[in-house]
Amino acid sequence: SKNSSINYGDRGMSLEAELNQSNEYYLDEDIAVVHKKPTPIQIVNVDYPKRSAAVIKEAYFQHASTTDYNGVYRGKYIDFDAKETTSNTSFPLSNFHKHQIEHMRKCTQLGGITFAMIKFVKSNELFVLAGPNLFYYWDRQNNGGRKSISKSELQDNAYQIKYQFQPLIPYLSAVDHIIDDRNNI
Amino acid sequence: SKNSSINYGDRGMSLEAELNQSNEYYLDEDIAVVHKKPTPIQIVNVDYPKRSAAVIKEAYFQHASTTDYNGVYRGKYIDFDAKETTSNTSFPLSNFHKHQIEHMRKCTQLGGITFAMIKFVKSNELFVLAGPNLFYYWDRQNNGGRKSISKSELQDNAYQIKYQFQPLIPYLSAVDHIIDDRNNI
Ligand SMILES: [Mg+2]
Ligand SMILES: [Mg+2]
Repeated sequence: SKNSSINYGDRGMSLEAELNQSNEYYLDEDIAVVHKKPTPIQIVNVDYPKRSAAVIKEAYFQHASTTDYNGVYRGKYIDFDAKETTSNTSFPLSNFHKHQIEHMRKCTQLGGITFAMIKFVKSNELFVLAGPNLFYYWDRQNNGGRKSISKSELQDNAYQIKYQFQPLIPYLSAVDHIIDDRNNI
Repeated sequence: SKNSSINYGDRGMSLEAELNQSNEYYLDEDIAVVHKKPTPIQIVNVDYPKRSAAVIKEAYFQHASTTDYNGVYRGKYIDFDAKETTSNTSFPLSNFHKHQIEHMRKCTQLGGITFAMIKFVKSNELFVLAGPNLFYYWDRQNNGGRKSISKSELQDNAYQIKYQFQPLIPYLSAVDHIIDDRNNI
């Protein structure tokens, strides 16, 4: 059809902005409540002027010890991180911090649904990689394996998501697959 | 016993600090992953000095549109807010913002476990009030009812939590009751 040639993903938006917009849709439609966590900030100095709002005068960005997004869908706890890469051929695992992987492992172990949302920005390709598969590749590098996940590995072992009109990134369809796969073990 | 006379809650800690310590225990013991969300901050001006970290020079505190805590326990999504009151006799509903109640309603509707953790700071008494009960009292005030929840109502309709050694606030025992009650409907 004519519509299928529209590339909804090619708007110069960051993956984060695209996901926030998608989450707003899911929220408005009562499908899921998923929010991006605020960036943690270390506050050093605050001014409290009379009759007006407190002003933070000195503060620093901190590294998040968890992932960017969490929430609830189908009663389940959802937890994921969003990562962009400019590579054409593979996703470098250096995009993840060790503590993010550890956080996702714990959430998975406790019954949560975890995944990585990976975007190849040059081709506008999106993949949802379930936590257990991500952990497999993460551990492989520590056992002398490659330090990235090739795109063909993602094509085989992740869910590719196509941009659409609403929500822009319909990633909950991949989450449905992850939930169903887990229930069928 | 002798130990029962120790008042673990009387340490001059804020409820937030007490909960963070309890959540650390639950995390270390692989029981639950629950974190406090960072306070959202609106950043107006950032300095990027050469060879050192970015410095936020002007920023403002924003009101959170959701609750303070969320995470995963027994595979389920957990979402709650912590509130202290200096009143001896009742919990004023003005401690909640309308959008926090709306957020908790949506999470409950989608199968999440929501509650309010209420502390009477003068008596060190703690109550876990399940979301649906909180919504009942919230709606009552809009129908001409009282603008607070009396302590005796909490004694009848919430779970009282006693401070203990580890975790300091064992609130997941109340969450177990909330999950079981829901499953028995
Ligand atoms: Mg990220
Ligand atoms: Mg609070």
